Amino acid sequence: MAAFNALGAAVRPAHAQIPPDIAHAADYERHAIHHVEAQAWQHIQGGSDQGLTLAHNRAAFDQLRLLPQPLAQLQQAHTRCTLLGQPLHCPLLLAPVAYQQLVHPAGELATIQAAMALQTGMVVSTLSSHTLEAIAATADQATQELGQGAPRWFQLYLQPDRQHSLQLVRRAEAAGYTALVWTVDASIKRSGFPLPPGVEAANLRGMPSTQHTSALQGPILFGTPLARQAPTWDDLRWLRDQTRLPLVVKGILSAAQAQQAVALGADALIVSNHGGRVLDGVVSPLEVLPAIAQAVGPTVPLLLDSGVRHGTDVVKALALGAHAVLIGRPQLHALATAGMLGVAHLLHLLRAELELAMAQLGCASVEAITPQVLWQPAASKQ
Amino acid sequence: MAAFNALGAAVRPAHAQIPPDIAHAADYERHAIHHVEAQAWQHIQGGSDQGLTLAHNRAAFDQLRLLPQPLAQLQQAHTRCTLLGQPLHCPLLLAPVAYQQLVHPAGELATIQAAMALQTGMVVSTLSSHTLEAIAATADQATQELGQGAPRWFQLYLQPDRQHSLQLVRRAEAAGYTALVWTVDASIKRSGFPLPPGVEAANLRGMPSTQHTSALQGPILFGTPLARQAPTWDDLRWLRDQTRLPLVVKGILSAAQAQQAVALGADALIVSNHGGRVLDGVVSPLEVLPAIAQAVGPTVPLLLDSGVRHGTDVVKALALGAHAVLIGRPQLHALATAGMLGVAHLLHLLRAELELAMAQLGCASVEAITPQVLWQPAASKQ
Amino acid sequence: MAAFNALGAAVRPAHAQIPPDIAHAADYERHAIHHVEAQAWQHIQGGSDQGLTLAHNRAAFDQLRLLPQPLAQLQQAHTRCTLLGQPLHCPLLLAPVAYQQLVHPAGELATIQAAMALQTGMVVSTLSSHTLEAIAATADQATQELGQGAPRWFQLYLQPDRQHSLQLVRRAEAAGYTALVWTVDASIKRSGFPLPPGVEAANLRGMPSTQHTSALQGPILFGTPLARQAPTWDDLRWLRDQTRLPLVVKGILSAAQAQQAVALGADALIVSNHGGRVLDGVVSPLEVLPAIAQAVGPTVPLLLDSGVRHGTDVVKALALGAHAVLIGRPQLHALATAGMLGVAHLLHLLRAELELAMAQLGCASVEAITPQVLWQPAASKQ
Amino acid sequence: MAAFNALGAAVRPAHAQIPPDIAHAADYERHAIHHVEAQAWQHIQGGSDQGLTLAHNRAAFDQLRLLPQPLAQLQQAHTRCTLLGQPLHCPLLLAPVAYQQLVHPAGELATIQAAMALQTGMVVSTLSSHTLEAIAATADQATQELGQGAPRWFQLYLQPDRQHSLQLVRRAEAAGYTALVWTVDASIKRSGFPLPPGVEAANLRGMPSTQHTSALQGPILFGTPLARQAPTWDDLRWLRDQTRLPLVVKGILSAAQAQQAVALGADALIVSNHGGRVLDGVVSPLEVLPAIAQAVGPTVPLLLDSGVRHGTDVVKALALGAHAVLIGRPQLHALATAGMLGVAHLLHLLRAELELAMAQLGCASVEAITPQVLWQPAASKQ
Repeated sequence: MAAFNALGAAVRPAHAQIPPDIAHAADYERHAIHHVEAQAWQHIQGGSDQGLTLAHNRAAFDQLRLLPQPLAQLQQAHTRCTLLGQPLHCPLLLAPVAYQQLVHPAGELATIQAAMALQTGMVVSTLSSHTLEAIAATADQATQELGQGAPRWFQLYLQPDRQHSLQLVRRAEAAGYTALVWTVDASIKRSGFPLPPGVEAANLRGMPSTQHTSALQGPILFGTPLARQAPTWDDLRWLRDQTRLPLVVKGILSAAQAQQAVALGADALIVSNHGGRVLDGVVSPLEVLPAIAQAVGPTVPLLLDSGVRHGTDVVKALALGAHAVLIGRPQLHALATAGMLGVAHLLHLLRAELELAMAQLGCASVEAITPQVLWQPAASKQ
Repeated sequence: MAAFNALGAAVRPAHAQIPPDIAHAADYERHAIHHVEAQAWQHIQGGSDQGLTLAHNRAAFDQLRLLPQPLAQLQQAHTRCTLLGQPLHCPLLLAPVAYQQLVHPAGELATIQAAMALQTGMVVSTLSSHTLEAIAATADQATQELGQGAPRWFQLYLQPDRQHSLQLVRRAEAAGYTALVWTVDASIKRSGFPLPPGVEAANLRGMPSTQHTSALQGPILFGTPLARQAPTWDDLRWLRDQTRLPLVVKGILSAAQAQQAVALGADALIVSNHGGRVLDGVVSPLEVLPAIAQAVGPTVPLLLDSGVRHGTDVVKALALGAHAVLIGRPQLHALATAGMLGVAHLLHLLRAELELAMAQLGCASVEAITPQVLWQPAASKQ
Repeated sequence: MAAFNALGAAVRPAHAQIPPDIAHAADYERHAIHHVEAQAWQHIQGGSDQGLTLAHNRAAFDQLRLLPQPLAQLQQAHTRCTLLGQPLHCPLLLAPVAYQQLVHPAGELATIQAAMALQTGMVVSTLSSHTLEAIAATADQATQELGQGAPRWFQLYLQPDRQHSLQLVRRAEAAGYTALVWTVDASIKRSGFPLPPGVEAANLRGMPSTQHTSALQGPILFGTPLARQAPTWDDLRWLRDQTRLPLVVKGILSAAQAQQAVALGADALIVSNHGGRVLDGVVSPLEVLPAIAQAVGPTVPLLLDSGVRHGTDVVKALALGAHAVLIGRPQLHALATAGMLGVAHLLHLLRAELELAMAQLGCASVEAITPQVLWQPAASKQ
Repeated sequence: MAAFNALGAAVRPAHAQIPPDIAHAADYERHAIHHVEAQAWQHIQGGSDQGLTLAHNRAAFDQLRLLPQPLAQLQQAHTRCTLLGQPLHCPLLLAPVAYQQLVHPAGELATIQAAMALQTGMVVSTLSSHTLEAIAATADQATQELGQGAPRWFQLYLQPDRQHSLQLVRRAEAAGYTALVWTVDASIKRSGFPLPPGVEAANLRGMPSTQHTSALQGPILFGTPLARQAPTWDDLRWLRDQTRLPLVVKGILSAAQAQQAVALGADALIVSNHGGRVLDGVVSPLEVLPAIAQAVGPTVPLLLDSGVRHGTDVVKALALGAHAVLIGRPQLHALATAGMLGVAHLLHLLRAELELAMAQLGCASVEAITPQVLWQPAASKQ
C-alpha cells in the first residue's frame, strides 16, 4: 500500500546518490518532503502552536550580521576543537533526534555511519528506533573500517520509574557512550503523533509509557501523575550520583538555571528550546546565549541547538559564546533524501560552509571566532 | 433556503462531535468559517476600518518572549484564583459576546452550559439573543446537575432612558448574577449589520433603539441625541449608586481613566479595546496594561480582553499585571463548530495549554506568574 | 471605442447612486479602478520609482497608536475651526488635484459642488481641466442655492514667463479665490503621461509648456532651461509682492525651510511630499511635522497632505501639530465612482469617521486634539 | 537548438531599440529575464545561500529617508567630480562584471562603447569574455569617434602563480588602463556554474585554474592549496611594488582593514560585499560606510558598490561618505535587453534620476551632498 507525502504524491524511497542540485546543506529540506509520509513530515517539521518559536529561532540567526575580514593567513587554518576532553574535527554534533526509522529504514544506523565517516559526534536519543547497543556496534564497526571516528553520547529522558532510568544509564556506559545528555524541557509536552507500524522506542521495550488524559473534565496536567513525574532539580542531584560519565543538561535557557545546573554537577549545557517543539513564544537559544555564557564563565562548555542550518550559523553561535552547535531536523532531511550518503554529504557541506565563512572572516581557528566577527552597529554609526 | 458561508458554500450545521484535527484552542477558527453565514461571519470577525487594531492585538502578544524555567516542583501545582471574592478554577472567563444565536440555535444557553461544566465564569451580554433570565436558569440547572459551577456576571450597555438601564440592573440582580460589567467604549460605534430573522436583543424587548443619521448633509454625531446619550463619568456615579453588585468597568485603556474609575467606585476594570471593533489604530490592552497596573496598584482586580487565543497569552497577560483574561470571538468559533461540546472542548484546551505553559515556566500557581517569566533583552545583552 | 481599465475590462461610467457596500471613505479606492482608464489610473495611483514614499506615507499614520478616553461630555462637541481667518466646518480640505476630467466628464465642477454642499474648502489646481473661472462660478451658484459654502483657494505652479504666472494670480483674485497656494516641489518632475483627447490644462491655454530632453547624450536637467526655471526663494519674494491674498507654500518638509518661508512672507505652509509622486525615499510629512511645528511656532497655520485616508488620520495629524489636512487621490476615487454624489459622500464619511474618533478619544473640539491622544510607549513601560 | 530562459520560454535576442516602457533604470531587470538563458540568469542574479545579503543590500538603501530642500539655485548645477585625479562626468562607474558574453554576443565591447558615449568610467574584469586589449581598443575607437570618453580601470584577481598576476598587470598598463582594482573578497568562493560554449575567461588563456575538492571526506578548504593561495596582506605589499598605477582595493568592509590597506599603499577603496555573492549574512557596504569614512578620513577616495539601482541610491551613498558608486548587475540587465543602446540608456536614466534627486534636495553639485540630505529622526522628534 502506497504511503503519501505532504504534497499528496506517493512517498519516494531515498536516492542511492546525492541529487545534483544540492549546493547548500539547507537544500536537503526541499528534497526531503518527497521522501517522508505526510503525518511523519508534519510531526518532524512542526513547531508548537503558531510556530512562533520555530520562526524566531531562524530570525535570531538571520538578524545578526557578519563583518568580513579577508586577507588573513590561512595556511595553518583548521576547525578542530575539544569538548569534555574529547577531540572534535569541527564544532558541530548531531543532536538527539527520535525515531529516525520514520524517514529511512536504516534509521540511526545510517546516521551514525555517516557521522563516523565525517568524524562528527552524535548524540543518540532515548527514543531511537534502533537500540543504543545496535547503534554503538555500528559506530564501532564504521570506526574500525574507516580508521577514524568521533564521540557518541547518549541522550536520556527520565522514566517514571528511576530503576528504568538507571538501566538506560548503565546500558549507555556499557555500550561505550562517552557522555550523558539529560533533556529537561520536553517531559510534559503533549503530542498526538501515533508511531506507524515497525517504528518503536527500541530502548524502552518492556517499560511503561506515560499518557495524558483526554477527558474534557477533571484534572489535565496539574494534579496528575504526569505533573508529579516531571523532572526536578532533585533528579539532577540523583543522576549526578549515578554515573561518572560527563553529564550534559539539555534544555537550559536562563542564566540562573545554567548556574544552578553547574552548581549541581553538570559538566556542560545545551542551550536549546527543543527546536521550537515544546512551548510557543519562548526565547531563542541564540538570544539568551550571551547572558548564559557570562553567567557560567568560559570554563563550562556551552552547546547550542535549535535553528542551525548554515555554516554561518555555526560562526554566529560561537561568536556569542557557544563552544559547539548541534543540528537536529537537517539530519532527518538528508537521511530521508539519500540515506547514509545524504547525511555524510550534509556534514561535508556544513563543514565546507563553515570553512568558507571562517576564511572570509579571517578566522584560522575556532578560537579566532570572537564577537569581533559580528558587526556592532552602535560602534559604526556616525 | 440554504444560507451561504464566507467561502461561498452552504452553511454547515454544527458537528455533534469534536472534529478530530483540533489540537489547539485556536484551531476552532478555521473550522467555524464553514458553519456561519457569510455576513454574520464578517460581522463577527471584522475589526474597524483597516483592521490595524485587530492585528495589533495579536502582535502585542506574539512579540513577547517567554523564558522557560523547567525543573520546578509541580506536585501541588494548580491554577485556582479568586476574583471579587469569587473563586475561579482558572484565571479565564468568557467575555460578553452579543447575539450568539447568529452562529448556533442554542446560542448563549449552550455556551453557559459548557462554562458551568468546565467551571469557567461567563459574562452575559445585554445584547444576548436569549433573555438573561433564561441563561441564568440554564446555568442553575447545569450547576445542579454537575455539582459544580462558576460565576456568571451581567454586562450592561446604558440605554437612552435611565429607567430602562435600571430595569436591566434589577433583572440581573434578581436572576442571581454576581457582578455588573459596564461597557463604556462602544455606545457610539457605527455598524451596518442587520440581524437576521429569529435573532434579536432578547433583553431589550420593548425598549427603543438608537440610530445613526444617514443623510449626507446636516449633523452626523456631534449635535445629535446620540452624542448627548454617550456614557459619561456622571453615569458611573449614578450606576454606582443603583446597585450593591460589584461593578466592573469595561473598555479602559488609559492609566488616568483607570484611576478615575476606581475613585468613582469601580470594583474592577477590564482593559479592553473591544476586540478591535470600535476604533482603528488604538493601543492594545496588553501594551497599556503595565501602566494601568502601576496606576491602580495591586488591590484592584484587572482583567484583560482582546486578542487572547492561546494558553501562553494568559501567562503573558498575568505576567504584565492582569488577574484574569476574557476570551470573546473564540467562544463563537467553538459554538458554531460543535455547539456546547465545542465550547467545553475549547475551555479544556485553553486550560491544558495554560497548565503546560506554567509547567515549562516553572510556575506552580498563578501567583508565580510574574514579570520574570518574560525575557528582558536589555538584561541579557552582552 | 471602448476604453479599458487597469483590470482589463471596459471602463464603467460613474454610478448615479452611492454603491451600497461603501462603509468607509477608503472604500472608494477599490471601486474607482473599474471607472478609470488604465493609463490614467496608473498615473493617478503611482508613486515615484519603487513607491517607497507612497507606502511610507501610510505607514507613518498606521504606526501611531491612539489612546481612547471615553466618558467625556460630548453635548457641545463640534469640529469647527478657522484657517487664515476663514471659518471651516471641519479641519479638512480638498487638495489641488490636476485634470479631474480624466476620471469624470464633470471634473472639477462636480468636485466643487460636492465641496460646497459639505461645507468643505477646496484648493483648485493650476492644471485643472476646467478654467478657474468656470469652477468659481459653479461654486458661487452652489453656495447660493444651498445657502452654505466653504473657502476656495487657488494653487499656483510658476510658469516659465513671470507674466503668465502673474496673469494666473490676477485671474484667481478676480474670480474670488481667498488664498494662493504656491507649490514648490514638483516643477522639475519627469512624467511620461500623455493627456487623452478632451483633457487639457484649461487655465494655461495659450501659454508654452516646459519639456524634458529625451536625447541619450547631452544635458538632461542641469544646464538646461528647465533647471534655470526651477522655483527659488527669489520667486517667493517676488510672488509675495504681487498679491494681497494669503500666501500658502506647499511642499515644505524641513524645519529650516519652513522658517525661511515664513520669514519671506508665507502666511501658512502645507507639509507635503506631493503624495509620494515626486521623489522616492523621502520623509513623510507626518514624521517631520513635529519638528516643523516646533520651528515655526503655534501661530503659523500648518496643513498636512499626503496619505490621509481615514478620520483617525486627521486626528493623528492634528495631534502632531497640523491645523488641518488635505486629501488628494480620494477625491478622484469618489468622483470616478459616483461623480458629485460620490465626492459628497466621501466628505460625509470622513467627517463621520473624524467625529467618531474624537468621541472615543474624549475630544469635544479640534483644540482638544493634543499629543495626549497618542500613546507614548516610553511613559507606559514598566 | 533553442535555449530557454528562467521563465521556461525561448531566450529572446536583444532588442534593436529601447523598449518603450522603461522609465527607470531599475526597469531593465524585469526585461532582462526574457533575454538570458536560465542557468546564466540564476548565476547572475543569485546571492549566496539564503540571499540575506542580497536583500539587505537593498534594504540598507531603502530604509534611509531623504529630506527635500527645494527652491535652491540650480543655474550652475552639475554632477562633475574627480577621482584619483581623473575627471568624471558624474560619480558613477561600471563595476567589474565577469563574462558579459553570457548575456549578449558583443559582451564587454558593447558595454564599453556605451560607457564612453555616456562619459562613464568602466572597470574591466579579469574574467572578461573579451581580452582586456580588445576592450581597450574598442574604448579608444569610441572615444576618438565621439570626441569624448571616460576612465577605464582594470580589475585584478590574483592568480596562483605570481608571474601570471604580473603579466595581467603589465598587459593592463600597456593597454592604457588608468587604475588597478584588486579584488580581495572572492578568491575562495565556491561556484558550480559551468560556462557555456563560446564564453571563456579571455584574459587567462594558457593559465591554470583553481579547483575545489568535491570528495566527501578529506580536506575541503583548510589544508588545501586553495587556502594557501588565498590573498593576504603580503600580496598587497607585493602588488604595490609592481606598478605605478593607482591601486584600488575592492572588498573592504571593516574600518580596521580600510586603514591597513591605506597604510600599505592603497590609493582608494571600494566598499563592497561583492553584490551579496560571496558570504551570506554580512554587513551591507552602506551601513559600514560611515565608520570607514571616519577611519580613513576625507582624503582617501571611497567607492561603494553592491545594491545601487536608483539615482537616489547614489545620493544616499555620497551623503554617507562615498566619493562615487559602481553598478554591477544592472549593466548586464541593460546589455541583455538592448545591447549597447540599452547600457547607454541605463546610464542616461541613472544620470537623470541623480540630477532630479539633487534638484529636489537643493544640491547644485556633488560636494553639496552631505549628511544633511538624510533625515535624522532623533533631531526631529518632539
